Amino acid sequence: MIGDPDAEVDRARPFDSAGDRDVTFAATPDCLERMAETAATAVIVRQAPPGAARNLLVAASPKLAFARAVALLHGQARTPGGVSADLVVGNGSTLGDELSIFPRVTIGRDSKIGDRVTLHPGVSIGDRCTIGDDTVVHPNVSIYDGSVIGSRVVIHSGTVIGADGFSFVPDEQGRQVKLLQLGWVVIEDDCEVGANCAVDRGGFGPTVLRRGVKLDNLIQVGHNTEIGEDTVVAALTGFSGGTQVGRRCVIAGQVGTNQHIIVGDSAVITARTGVTKSVKPGAIMGGMMPAQDYNEWRRAHAIYKRLPEISRRLSRVEKLVGGDKRDPGDSQ
Amino acid sequence: MIGDPDAEVDRARPFDSAGDRDVTFAATPDCLERMAETAATAVIVRQAPPGAARNLLVAASPKLAFARAVALLHGQARTPGGVSADLVVGNGSTLGDELSIFPRVTIGRDSKIGDRVTLHPGVSIGDRCTIGDDTVVHPNVSIYDGSVIGSRVVIHSGTVIGADGFSFVPDEQGRQVKLLQLGWVVIEDDCEVGANCAVDRGGFGPTVLRRGVKLDNLIQVGHNTEIGEDTVVAALTGFSGGTQVGRRCVIAGQVGTNQHIIVGDSAVITARTGVTKSVKPGAIMGGMMPAQDYNEWRRAHAIYKRLPEISRRLSRVEKLVGGDKRDPGDSQ
Amino acid sequence: MIGDPDAEVDRARPFDSAGDRDVTFAATPDCLERMAETAATAVIVRQAPPGAARNLLVAASPKLAFARAVALLHGQARTPGGVSADLVVGNGSTLGDELSIFPRVTIGRDSKIGDRVTLHPGVSIGDRCTIGDDTVVHPNVSIYDGSVIGSRVVIHSGTVIGADGFSFVPDEQGRQVKLLQLGWVVIEDDCEVGANCAVDRGGFGPTVLRRGVKLDNLIQVGHNTEIGEDTVVAALTGFSGGTQVGRRCVIAGQVGTNQHIIVGDSAVITARTGVTKSVKPGAIMGGMMPAQDYNEWRRAHAIYKRLPEISRRLSRVEKLVGGDKRDPGDSQ
Repeated sequence: MIGDPDAEVDRARPFDSAGDRDVTFAATPDCLERMAETAATAVIVRQAPPGAARNLLVAASPKLAFARAVALLHGQARTPGGVSADLVVGNGSTLGDELSIFPRVTIGRDSKIGDRVTLHPGVSIGDRCTIGDDTVVHPNVSIYDGSVIGSRVVIHSGTVIGADGFSFVPDEQGRQVKLLQLGWVVIEDDCEVGANCAVDRGGFGPTVLRRGVKLDNLIQVGHNTEIGEDTVVAALTGFSGGTQVGRRCVIAGQVGTNQHIIVGDSAVITARTGVTKSVKPGAIMGGMMPAQDYNEWRRAHAIYKRLPEISRRLSRVEKLVGGDKRDPGDSQ
Repeated sequence: MIGDPDAEVDRARPFDSAGDRDVTFAATPDCLERMAETAATAVIVRQAPPGAARNLLVAASPKLAFARAVALLHGQARTPGGVSADLVVGNGSTLGDELSIFPRVTIGRDSKIGDRVTLHPGVSIGDRCTIGDDTVVHPNVSIYDGSVIGSRVVIHSGTVIGADGFSFVPDEQGRQVKLLQLGWVVIEDDCEVGANCAVDRGGFGPTVLRRGVKLDNLIQVGHNTEIGEDTVVAALTGFSGGTQVGRRCVIAGQVGTNQHIIVGDSAVITARTGVTKSVKPGAIMGGMMPAQDYNEWRRAHAIYKRLPEISRRLSRVEKLVGGDKRDPGDSQ
Repeated sequence: MIGDPDAEVDRARPFDSAGDRDVTFAATPDCLERMAETAATAVIVRQAPPGAARNLLVAASPKLAFARAVALLHGQARTPGGVSADLVVGNGSTLGDELSIFPRVTIGRDSKIGDRVTLHPGVSIGDRCTIGDDTVVHPNVSIYDGSVIGSRVVIHSGTVIGADGFSFVPDEQGRQVKLLQLGWVVIEDDCEVGANCAVDRGGFGPTVLRRGVKLDNLIQVGHNTEIGEDTVVAALTGFSGGTQVGRRCVIAGQVGTNQHIIVGDSAVITARTGVTKSVKPGAIMGGMMPAQDYNEWRRAHAIYKRLPEISRRLSRVEKLVGGDKRDPGDSQ
């Protein structure tokens, strides 16, 4: 800590909107250069810039320190709202203490709701489910029979847990016959699942989100997929059936994975990449089609389709020309 | 107007199914050529084709004129259905006049519902929300605390407004720590949001859909994104956090945008394009992988991966061959 | 059948977890090689491997035979749960026999619910809908007015049937004017629709899923699209308005189709392909950007953008070199 040790802050705010009695953080190098511009009372930085006449908090991860400051200054204690009189609950189900169960909630048979759980309006929980302590389920979430949800899990609105995996096989007449989906879903402690996701039950055995997985919105998790601890996944990504994703991976948005592949621990998959083969631990994988001028793209793509021909023509020319096979270096 | 001024129409119909007492429009040049084929009583066209013995309505935008004809002939006056006796509404909330509130609706505390609002079954509205006059919210929509929805807005089923933005940062042990999302969502007047979309609240401050924005289905709008007036967005597109989209843009389906980029006014992004950098106003941007024969695609893609090598080999050959550097022109 | 004709099985299980009194199937050639490893009492195979000392069931399609074994051993007879006392149902609607209508279900006016239908909590059905016999609608599904759903259909949670098609046209001031969507949705017998899909109503006339179509999760079906019998579609795929998909097609995940194109019968579209033009019956189409090392991809893509230039340079070199125009063959 550098500067006035008695400085006080009430709020956490982003760099450009922070003011008096606010703490902020230098999100980018650019912020460090513009340090004079913020009216914040204190700024969290990784390293103190030379000669900055400000109150500075030096932290190895300024964003992490800021996240903790936000939680400290703005987090709200939960006050249990009780159980709505209109709760519909089936035989054999049990309810914990200090609940907030809003109106319009339905719970099936033989399910177990932990302590301090919050179930918002329109939540439907099936039979034989478990919902761990301190878990929050937002409005209109559907949880199918047999789902196992851990403690301190957050599930956002519209998400569907435990619908059938997609598994059909054509019969002799070409009609699709369903493989009954006998598995279930396990979501371990401290996971967060965004809005309008679909986490399918396994065909046999479970589909699993390990402890601390964080999913953004509109994500598809196929049957028997397993996602490792602390992995984060951005919106509109789809995991095919049986994908194995490691721990601490970063999967960006609109990614897709092939069936039954393995993504190693700490791998990074950049946005919009189609993962067709297994990925080594720690690998950084990419592959997308970035926007360019529409007509330029059309011209480039016309050649792309002819790449095998281009390659053959180049080989022919090389044969004719011969000479030094030394690579001329990357002259592009 | 050309033809019989006393011709009457009761219905608006597409070109190929229009019949007697129907008005239609020439959607494509092809329709103009097939003018003799339609049984429609009147056809809206941009320009009268020579010698067409039909009732024609000439309009600068035939599709616009047709849209207005549809609204005129088929639009139905709303009759308020009243407020269901089972409405659950929290303290401090106020309800306007001439409402249609269906059964199974839940409204939190200190929210304000305008006049002539329609709330379908299963709608969940949180605390401190505003819903403007004449807005229609379809079944099973979830609107989180603090959302501000304008007048004449339509929100289709399953859509989630105001769930948390996706913002986590790893701690010293690699566990993901949540940045509390303190912002909210603003949807201005005359917007329409399709089914099963997710419009996240801002981290700080609002996520905003400006007046007249139209979203198709299954669209992700990240925290603190702002979409400008009258911009249209097709299905399965995702906007990363902090994207700034201008006015009157056309964003096609399955597009994705990088964080914190700016898409200028009136820009067009064609389908399935990944927008990695800011886009100038009026630009037309593309970039996707169009379907081709599967085996041809595999062969082309095998070369794609070796493009840096191809380029080096070409440079080497050029060096050996030398000669006239004049571009031989686009001989492809 | 080969082996002990009196062997009995109680369960169907995957190859690697099957044990005593289980039947399994050889999903891959690899399973045939590892035949000695499974503890299953019986294995379904396409062809008996030489010298396998096991109980074998030989079937033309082992997966199909296995699906039937699963259904036989694990399928559960439905017991009707009756109609919840809290059902809200409008005037003119009729209900069949042996229903399971859970709490929190809302049905509009003049709708017809067939026999042995199951409606889970939070299902909202509009006016003038038809739900055929033996159909199952999972929690929080929204079905708009006028939808026609066949018999033995399954609709998973969060799915929206019949929301408006996405059809707007700018007026003289650039404001988007809506084309009222006067059509409806038809889902024929034996279809299954996954979780959080959106099947839009037609602009005029219907959007149609023909008999036996199977949709995975998070799929967009645009207005007036028609999908042919027994076609299967994987997650996060989007069909633009007016797409015509044939019978028995296989459409993989994250595919997108252009408006008004035709995909012929039995066509296969591999994952993440953008279908810009009509596809012939039986064609196998591909086109995606498979993951590769991130930096390698960046280098390849830098050249991709310059392909027209590369192509011109190659042509120039060829002109200079001349010589034998014979294709040197695929020397890559």
